[in-house]
Amino acid sequence: MKENSTQNHSTGETYQDIYRWGNKKSTEVDLGTLAFLEKRFSTQRETQRKIGKMVSSQKTVEISPSKLLPEHKAFFENLLGKENVKSSDFARANHSFGKFYTDLLFLRNAQVPFPPDVVLSPKNHQEIESIVAYCNQHKIAILPFAGGSSVTRALEFPHGGVALDLKSRLNQIIEINQTNHTVTAQSGILGPDLEAALNKEGYTCGHFPQSFEFSTLGGWVAAKGAGQCSTGYGRAEELLVSLKAVTPIGTFEGKDFPSAVQGFDLKHLFVGSEGTLGVITEVTWKIFKHRPQNTQKSSFIFKDFFSSTAAMREMIQNEIGKPHLFRISDGKETDFAFSHLGFQGTWKDKLLSTLGYKSPQRCTMVMTVEGESTYGKSVMGNMKKIARKHGGFPSGEEPINKWLKQRFDSPYLRDGLMEEGYMIDTLETAVTWDNLHGLWQAIHRYFETNPKVYGMSHISHVYPNGCNIYAIFISPMKDEPLENTLKEFHAFQQGIIQTFVENKGSISHHHGVGRMGAEFMSGQFPKEGFSMMQGIKDLFDPSGIMNPGGNMLGLKDRFGSEDSKS
Amino acid sequence: MKENSTQNHSTGETYQDIYRWGNKKSTEVDLGTLAFLEKRFSTQRETQRKIGKMVSSQKTVEISPSKLLPEHKAFFENLLGKENVKSSDFARANHSFGKFYTDLLFLRNAQVPFPPDVVLSPKNHQEIESIVAYCNQHKIAILPFAGGSSVTRALEFPHGGVALDLKSRLNQIIEINQTNHTVTAQSGILGPDLEAALNKEGYTCGHFPQSFEFSTLGGWVAAKGAGQCSTGYGRAEELLVSLKAVTPIGTFEGKDFPSAVQGFDLKHLFVGSEGTLGVITEVTWKIFKHRPQNTQKSSFIFKDFFSSTAAMREMIQNEIGKPHLFRISDGKETDFAFSHLGFQGTWKDKLLSTLGYKSPQRCTMVMTVEGESTYGKSVMGNMKKIARKHGGFPSGEEPINKWLKQRFDSPYLRDGLMEEGYMIDTLETAVTWDNLHGLWQAIHRYFETNPKVYGMSHISHVYPNGCNIYAIFISPMKDEPLENTLKEFHAFQQGIIQTFVENKGSISHHHGVGRMGAEFMSGQFPKEGFSMMQGIKDLFDPSGIMNPGGNMLGLKDRFGSEDSKS
Repeated sequence: MKENSTQNHSTGETYQDIYRWGNKKSTEVDLGTLAFLEKRFSTQRETQRKIGKMVSSQKTVEISPSKLLPEHKAFFENLLGKENVKSSDFARANHSFGKFYTDLLFLRNAQVPFPPDVVLSPKNHQEIESIVAYCNQHKIAILPFAGGSSVTRALEFPHGGVALDLKSRLNQIIEINQTNHTVTAQSGILGPDLEAALNKEGYTCGHFPQSFEFSTLGGWVAAKGAGQCSTGYGRAEELLVSLKAVTPIGTFEGKDFPSAVQGFDLKHLFVGSEGTLGVITEVTWKIFKHRPQNTQKSSFIFKDFFSSTAAMREMIQNEIGKPHLFRISDGKETDFAFSHLGFQGTWKDKLLSTLGYKSPQRCTMVMTVEGESTYGKSVMGNMKKIARKHGGFPSGEEPINKWLKQRFDSPYLRDGLMEEGYMIDTLETAVTWDNLHGLWQAIHRYFETNPKVYGMSHISHVYPNGCNIYAIFISPMKDEPLENTLKEFHAFQQGIIQTFVENKGSISHHHGVGRMGAEFMSGQFPKEGFSMMQGIKDLFDPSGIMNPGGNMLGLKDRFGSEDSKS
Repeated sequence: MKENSTQNHSTGETYQDIYRWGNKKSTEVDLGTLAFLEKRFSTQRETQRKIGKMVSSQKTVEISPSKLLPEHKAFFENLLGKENVKSSDFARANHSFGKFYTDLLFLRNAQVPFPPDVVLSPKNHQEIESIVAYCNQHKIAILPFAGGSSVTRALEFPHGGVALDLKSRLNQIIEINQTNHTVTAQSGILGPDLEAALNKEGYTCGHFPQSFEFSTLGGWVAAKGAGQCSTGYGRAEELLVSLKAVTPIGTFEGKDFPSAVQGFDLKHLFVGSEGTLGVITEVTWKIFKHRPQNTQKSSFIFKDFFSSTAAMREMIQNEIGKPHLFRISDGKETDFAFSHLGFQGTWKDKLLSTLGYKSPQRCTMVMTVEGESTYGKSVMGNMKKIARKHGGFPSGEEPINKWLKQRFDSPYLRDGLMEEGYMIDTLETAVTWDNLHGLWQAIHRYFETNPKVYGMSHISHVYPNGCNIYAIFISPMKDEPLENTLKEFHAFQQGIIQTFVENKGSISHHHGVGRMGAEFMSGQFPKEGFSMMQGIKDLFDPSGIMNPGGNMLGLKDRFGSEDSKS
């Protein structure tokens, strides 16, 4: 299958071919991690492995037939060519999910509750204009589908309709402009393809989300993403220069001015719109000189979360320049990582404990600085000074080098953990510094309400006025019917978002809202703010064809007669 | 007059009390400048001075009576107290203009074509909610009026109605949050008041437009402003954390997350909205440590515009950190400044010429770096290296010190020049690096079409992908009827904007669009972009009461039966 090969799946048509994160790398879980989990949960390896294997489906995909009317199919085939209009079971199932935990569960149980009726692979802006206009006229739902890496239930088709496959053909670089330090490309280009083309000319895109290998330029903008080096390079909204998008009321095309006043700037509406307003077709993006040889790296161990975050805050607020990668793993995550890296129990571990850097309070901070070499040294020198002032123990380059080596591996690890009978999920939120500790403590209190959960967190995107927090939890899977598992997971997971918003965090920092956070949306907008968002949605998409049925707006369904079944 | 005293005017009620930029400083023009202009235009001092004095009006203000219905006045008096509802001739005339050249001309000719019917001075968000709801119900036009420093014809009342005076009472600081490095204040606070309160706590607002003394926090956001140090601190949209605004369809209240995904972010709509969507009532803004003792300063002379901009581009693209103030005066502006500073003809001038830095090609670059001291030194060190590489002649701290001393003086100088019979006006545009030289040359070609114009330009806001350009022109005033003068000025001035947009510049970089650029708006949006902007306007302001009649959207008038007379 062509549309599959870009994800490096095997060439089969099984559920596993859809749910796996790619097959380039081993997904085997290291023994250190397994031992850590077994100790924590008093689980047996064979029992958990059996549960894991039970939800590992190599069946060939079979789903309910497409409801696309023949005349619509004919229109699309005429427009795009037959080979770019797919309604096979596999093609449709392959565009029915992101990589959210429940997405994987459904697939591992050979279930596809909300498939599209057809997968269309347009090659340019004009074809997308024709598709959107046609669908608007005939009230056919559309959802742009590119990398497919969503972890927020952003990719579901409760009303069937069109999955607009952007990555197969809408993936060309239009211009690398070395004078302006920008690149313009079609929105469906995958991270590695964009980066390779830029590297060849001596540039980098500066944006490396964990989903980098299977996410696209347009997806980064639509989900308002942030890469691992966002503290230095900026997040998607800052890297974005301009964009072109097709909406049901027409095309928006921005200009690439560095900054201009021409009324309010509509491009911001598409940032974080998650397919609810239109389809982003082209993006102009900032680029940077690619000089990996200049990268300064360092790491520190702190005695606790409070001293590490005090250091972090001082580093980002003292106007010493900015690190690019900048992270703190809290005590629980540090313990988990140390077990994964085989650090626990070594003499270094013992030395640290003797010096007062004790598990489970001790935290790890890692940072890199990129750019011109003297700049990097100046920034890193000042960061080190501040780290020491707050009691940071210098742990050198090894931790950051290890981290960088596996920077895109966590999604593979998740597949492996599921095979071993453990689920892992992750949510994230944004918070101001003055609410950080309260929120962090609330997250851990919440984790502790469930003895079958190991919860940990880290900070990975840092701003002068605050930061994000990741909330990550691992739990042994149970031998229970899918329905119960889903219900239990849903309840626990929504409780985390509830904890975020009750403690002054946002629904999400950069994963997006999706259907996962939809219920919380209206509550986040005091006064008339949320109805204004609905008004914008209705303005751009009067028939409600863009991503209908419980999307991130949390809107009541305005499409078709049937309510979302999700 | 209370509403006048904050601008440091005299306590009279004359036209001069309105049009003068304040009376703290002498507005006398130095002899060097006068000699330069007389030589350039072959003008006579006494003749020009006579023309200047002719349009200097110390008459007491008298204008047509307010059309506000008694029941509306009673409602406002009941809501705000009688003392906060003003309809005297002077109060209304004093809220009828910004500081655009034609604004000054009208006032100097004792004319007030578009006054409001009443000036309301609310003290909080709730009062503004009541005012906007009432006006929406009764179809009364509203225009927020704060610092009154607009240079784009943003402040006119072709349909009368309410001037919402935000600076008199809506000017309180709500919180200085030292943990988050943010300040929250009511929108009508003037720059100096905000900065003084921050300085007291060891912080700075980082935003210093030339209008600093008479512009407000909310105005900076509404016009999408940029201060003189925006290259380092960022422009208003980047300094803005969140805002609260009243619109005819209700209140929008953002959250102060450092960055979050909660759908598309509506705060961006109010940035650059120029009063067309609603009234910004509160703003949360980033702040920085105030450490003026750390400021690094430097300046260079370059042989021409091309080498100076090549150096500037390399400095901003090389990831060496960022300067805060960063400017290039082109050859014509350098000549003008040198005459103003009495530099021309000195031995230093001669030495420079001998070394190949000749008038009128030679350009001046000035820069400062703020922040932590070792950071500042590192950035400046790298900038100096790059400057030398491009042939920059180091001219030390004196030029930048002189510039800083008079950084807010140009508006005073304009008053002085008008008294001497010369008009000066300034427009600005944003452009990418690859279009910079073409645009700059086109601006000068345009200036040269008029022999009675001395045109010059500078760059003062710099980005990795481009910069702004100012287009400034001086011309001797003529002894002609106001109508002719206005017509001639309008034609020449619109020609500059036309030159911008034809050469891939924006309508404006940070002054705003106002009525001055309104006609160009629709042409700047390909495809359906402009109708989307109109849609947003209609969504937030369905009755069209916010700044109606030829505002920055260039919309057809949807308010009342009468077309804009402007």
